[in-house]
Amino acid sequence: MVKLVAIYRVPEDVEAFDKHYFEVHGPLAEKMPGLIKMEVGKVYGTPAGDSDLHLIAEMYFETKEALMEALSSAEGRAAGKDLRGFAGNVVSMHFVEVVEK
Amino acid sequence: MVKLVAIYRVPEDVEAFDKHYFEVHGPLAEKMPGLIKMEVGKVYGTPAGDSDLHLIAEMYFETKEALMEALSSAEGRAAGKDLRGFAGNVVSMHFVEVVEK
Repeated sequence: MVKLVAIYRVPEDVEAFDKHYFEVHGPLAEKMPGLIKMEVGKVYGTPAGDSDLHLIAEMYFETKEALMEALSSAEGRAAGKDLRGFAGNVVSMHFVEVVEK
Repeated sequence: MVKLVAIYRVPEDVEAFDKHYFEVHGPLAEKMPGLIKMEVGKVYGTPAGDSDLHLIAEMYFETKEALMEALSSAEGRAAGKDLRGFAGNVVSMHFVEVVEK
């Protein structure tokens, strides 16, 4: 199992960001073919106080190949284009392999 | 549901880091009271190439209070002490509330 992890730093306008994320971007991302599960989390702090992060979104796929196919699909490209438009300056994306125990 | 998310940047000595993480630190973290699930993921890239991250570990708890109690427990303090020793310069910790849909 692998996941595409999107880490969002705190945006300038949190309210506008959340509205776009939850009403537009999330639903676009959920359309990616091969997506098994999507988990979105709101960062509310750190052990030392405020966090520089705002949101962490994880999209699970069966294999590395399925993740790459999802990104290059029409739905993945649409989600990518939307992402660059509203969050290009606060997001970093990472490919992560879940360690099986 | 909430989670404690530990984000590790790429360490100087990846092999030594992994050995300590999987043989010592992971087992210590898993002893925290109230821990529901732990998911560890190895970062293997980004859409643009190499990632600056190495590992993302997520520890799930029922509530924010349960997470705080786990951190302040003897087991949580032992895991925290170990963390500062082997990864203090590459880790950031975040409290995250899972968005229920």
